[in-house]
Amino acid sequence: RIKSGLTEAGVDFVELGGVKPNPKVGLVREGVALCRQENVDFILAVGGGSVIDSAKAIGIGVFHPGDVWDYYTQTIKVTETLPVGVVLTIPAAGSESSTGSVITNEENEYKRSAGNKIMRPVFAFLNPELTYSLPPYQTACGIVDMFAHVLERYFTNEKGVSLTDRLCEATLKTIVEQGLAVMENPKDYNARAEIMWAGAIAHNGSLGLGRTEDWASHMIEHEISGIYDIAHGAGLAIVFPAWMQYVHQHDLGRFVQYAKSVWDIPTEGRDEEAVARAAIEATKRFFKRLGMPISFEDANLPSDKIEEMAGKTVENGPVGGFVKLEKGDVIRILKIASDLK
Amino acid sequence: RIKSGLTEAGVDFVELGGVKPNPKVGLVREGVALCRQENVDFILAVGGGSVIDSAKAIGIGVFHPGDVWDYYTQTIKVTETLPVGVVLTIPAAGSESSTGSVITNEENEYKRSAGNKIMRPVFAFLNPELTYSLPPYQTACGIVDMFAHVLERYFTNEKGVSLTDRLCEATLKTIVEQGLAVMENPKDYNARAEIMWAGAIAHNGSLGLGRTEDWASHMIEHEISGIYDIAHGAGLAIVFPAWMQYVHQHDLGRFVQYAKSVWDIPTEGRDEEAVARAAIEATKRFFKRLGMPISFEDANLPSDKIEEMAGKTVENGPVGGFVKLEKGDVIRILKIASDLK
Repeated sequence: RIKSGLTEAGVDFVELGGVKPNPKVGLVREGVALCRQENVDFILAVGGGSVIDSAKAIGIGVFHPGDVWDYYTQTIKVTETLPVGVVLTIPAAGSESSTGSVITNEENEYKRSAGNKIMRPVFAFLNPELTYSLPPYQTACGIVDMFAHVLERYFTNEKGVSLTDRLCEATLKTIVEQGLAVMENPKDYNARAEIMWAGAIAHNGSLGLGRTEDWASHMIEHEISGIYDIAHGAGLAIVFPAWMQYVHQHDLGRFVQYAKSVWDIPTEGRDEEAVARAAIEATKRFFKRLGMPISFEDANLPSDKIEEMAGKTVENGPVGGFVKLEKGDVIRILKIASDLK
Repeated sequence: RIKSGLTEAGVDFVELGGVKPNPKVGLVREGVALCRQENVDFILAVGGGSVIDSAKAIGIGVFHPGDVWDYYTQTIKVTETLPVGVVLTIPAAGSESSTGSVITNEENEYKRSAGNKIMRPVFAFLNPELTYSLPPYQTACGIVDMFAHVLERYFTNEKGVSLTDRLCEATLKTIVEQGLAVMENPKDYNARAEIMWAGAIAHNGSLGLGRTEDWASHMIEHEISGIYDIAHGAGLAIVFPAWMQYVHQHDLGRFVQYAKSVWDIPTEGRDEEAVARAAIEATKRFFKRLGMPISFEDANLPSDKIEEMAGKTVENGPVGGFVKLEKGDVIRILKIASDLK
């Protein structure tokens, strides 16, 4: 449809297919070469987060005479990009509204990100009907991904940020409710629309405004999917409950608020620790109902590379804005994640 | 501070002061002439909604050889504007993030709006400390104004828009909580910041996404402040409770949701009508606690121009996207508003 639309409109284009989940820098390099060769002045990403992140990477890569991976090792800074437009087919990563791009280097299994506000797509078409045919597993991975994008912002040490707290809770609650509706009925237009919009809201930056964000779980997950090439959403479903279990005592009050506002867990007269644990249980149950794994065991992944993954996670220093994690902490979280029930 | 900053930075500028609340087209015309004479290429609005709306009007006026008022009578369409930047001093109108401008024609007491996405300011500085010195009355008017901006979007006939419903409720709840905190302690940085951000969120368009919006109360209010020159927020505090009382039976379910989600009014086993009325009472009580009038009587306004105001409200046809109001309906609403307790 898009190709014939472009042809009808007299727009010249070249195509680059073959983007894989956990998109690889190899294809990005091909894309950069293609853009130079064909004098491409605009990139239209038709797909989900992997396609959009690849398009963003190509867009900046064109302006760097060296290797595009340099942006992802933070060796050089993003200063210019080709404009990127989006036709979204998988609501998940929120890349259609975000300023970042995550790419995997298949040579060394590193998964790294680059970001700059000029990398935000100049437009994005979000048509829920395009997502009717998404398989349940991909749909579920997307739901976990957007849920996690809000959690990374929700768990903050900032005080006095109630508007964004309320907006985060609104988005989390909607993702739970509409996510389950979409799994039940994949052709529910309204539920598909809510999920598609929630994915964009979750990651456009507004829910993190004025807050320190966490992102440790994402960094830990990047090491899992970097090595095992599992879907990012599935990896997050494995990391987040373990992370919550490990860090919740850092701010029981915030976990109680999460319990009350997102999961409607009664709090009156109850012990904070018990309420927090109930919220973590509710989170796990939600991921399970979506058909997601919540442990390495669930996902049929070995847990013998924990040491290596933990090392890569912290190689640029401790991670996490809510609770700072050293290598030992990451190891303990991954151990919890290995056989969580 | 701004003038010396501009001078230090070597930026040439001319000044136009004298904007009044319910900003007048006369000053806008002066501004247009000044911009032409001095070849102004950028307008910096330093103030609240009246200043920003005037700046927006001047920005578009420069590109029309005829009278700038033509945009407000919808005689001609907005096609171009000078860029407008904002330093916000009164959180209320949300004009710093919106695409519209409301101007009053002092010759015929008409208050009308023009809008286009190119009229959205290119940047806005929101520094809560600049609002510490706002008098309580202005602070309260601003709180009602932003609350009303969300209500206009919340009361919709659209089904299946739960994410924006939840985001609206999040914003309304925050405005109530933080609005009362700000009245209590005008130098509470966090509360001032929340209110300032809520004002921008309330009117940047995101809370109306995918929904039919109402706006009848705003149109009715424009006729009140167009004639009596009272603050827009005070006028809204008068119109909204009366509007709610008049229309609530159109969709009791939505008023029950409003009661539950914004005012924490218990609903179980209670009659829907009683719950809806409790929510309207809660709204009135909130406006009263802010020190706002909720009737013509409260505001010491005569109620002898109801017929004229109703006529002007509907002169381009019935108003309201939630409940369509003819002249007779507007008269009945204004009569309720004349001595509401």
